[in-house]
Amino acid sequence: MLILPIRTPLLQPGDDLAAAIAASCEQKPGDIVAVSAKAAATCEGRLLPLASFGKGDEAFQKAVLAETERMHGTVLCNRAGVILTELRPCGLGRGTLLVANAGLDRSNAPEGFAVGWPEDPVASVRALRKALGTSIILTDSCCHVRRLGVTAMALAVSGLMPFRNQEGERDLFGRTLKVTQEAVADQLATAANLLMGNAAQSAPAALIRDHGIVMADFEGWVDGIDPKEDMFPICTPPCGSAPSVYPMHSKQDPSPRPS
Amino acid sequence: MLILPIRTPLLQPGDDLAAAIAASCEQKPGDIVAVSAKAAATCEGRLLPLASFGKGDEAFQKAVLAETERMHGTVLCNRAGVILTELRPCGLGRGTLLVANAGLDRSNAPEGFAVGWPEDPVASVRALRKALGTSIILTDSCCHVRRLGVTAMALAVSGLMPFRNQEGERDLFGRTLKVTQEAVADQLATAANLLMGNAAQSAPAALIRDHGIVMADFEGWVDGIDPKEDMFPICTPPCGSAPSVYPMHSKQDPSPRPS
Repeated sequence: MLILPIRTPLLQPGDDLAAAIAASCEQKPGDIVAVSAKAAATCEGRLLPLASFGKGDEAFQKAVLAETERMHGTVLCNRAGVILTELRPCGLGRGTLLVANAGLDRSNAPEGFAVGWPEDPVASVRALRKALGTSIILTDSCCHVRRLGVTAMALAVSGLMPFRNQEGERDLFGRTLKVTQEAVADQLATAANLLMGNAAQSAPAALIRDHGIVMADFEGWVDGIDPKEDMFPICTPPCGSAPSVYPMHSKQDPSPRPS
Repeated sequence: MLILPIRTPLLQPGDDLAAAIAASCEQKPGDIVAVSAKAAATCEGRLLPLASFGKGDEAFQKAVLAETERMHGTVLCNRAGVILTELRPCGLGRGTLLVANAGLDRSNAPEGFAVGWPEDPVASVRALRKALGTSIILTDSCCHVRRLGVTAMALAVSGLMPFRNQEGERDLFGRTLKVTQEAVADQLATAANLLMGNAAQSAPAALIRDHGIVMADFEGWVDGIDPKEDMFPICTPPCGSAPSVYPMHSKQDPSPRPS
């Protein structure tokens, strides 16, 4: 498997992201292009002006609350300088997304703005796939429980299955495997993120070649796990965290998606 | 970055893992070799005979408890068919490891045995680096909170820094970055795991080349995050899970490591 960073000029609202990517790399049939959700959101003009939410840190907190509500989510708590949010955006077929600050970040956004995910990540991957002719993975940086450091996840894909189903496959000793899903999209996003980075030298995309992954016509959010089925028991408020300035929803689960 | 699976014959207790890897790939200076912790444990003869713990599923549960105690850990709960354990093995400098079944698995072990991690993962990476002359990452498959499917993490490394410190680095707009650690080893382990797999066709190792990562003399466990500093609030028992047949430790944190 070959992974190459795709470096573009600094992206601005209104830029044609697909054209910038196409101009910066030579794609071959079967390639997968991993694209930063924040780069896509920037080009789509989805920079949130913090002044419209209030002043200082409170403005960012209010922007996080608004983004959480937009994605039918819940603020779980405020720990380690992060507002932990559980999101259930329209179109997500299964489970929830448990992420810092509803995906919003003040880094890598112009001063006075926050940048998060595209308004409709599935529309973003669809448009990128149509324009580039490659399969697309929309990635975002994230942290994992008890793990130090930033890694990444896949939000949405177009042109490949996010999971490899191992049902019926055998282990080295011929027995049927118990765990039956391999997180293909998350692993590809993580591999790409290592080359994309989070600092000034960062690349908004990466090209993945010779991956051996069968292409498919699937397009959508990458499913998660329902809180009740997850092996990790996350505390819902009150969770013993420091008192928070944010209003806490008291529901056990995020609100149901509108039907 | 180029990642290639390293396929070996089926590994058995007593096999020379480094020799099997060296015979199956051509290494170049600067390569990193990712090695499955379960492959290393198998070659080191660390297959746990389940009959010595009891009968049926209870034997596996008791083996998990014994492995948890060996790594100064705590059983947190039993959800989704998994015993969630929080481990603090000797030598881990910071944080804990929150993993299923204390790292034990009945898949990819001979019938009647479970396979987990090497007794001393740091000794394993040291020996592999000495024998192969490359930097080593010891990997294990894992799951992440609210994410569907199996991915991977790095347990220990030799010959590289597990994190890239971004302190003082700037974002695209010239501001100092707030998040200052990039999970290099975890991301490399995850990228490699995609090619190593978890089924019969699996490769016990992968070669990582043209990665741009600066080599270093560091050798050790990959640090985690202390539960009190983690943005994810994990419930300690009782956590609302189904009643369990396992004795639950009632401590908030894993027991302190012996000094």
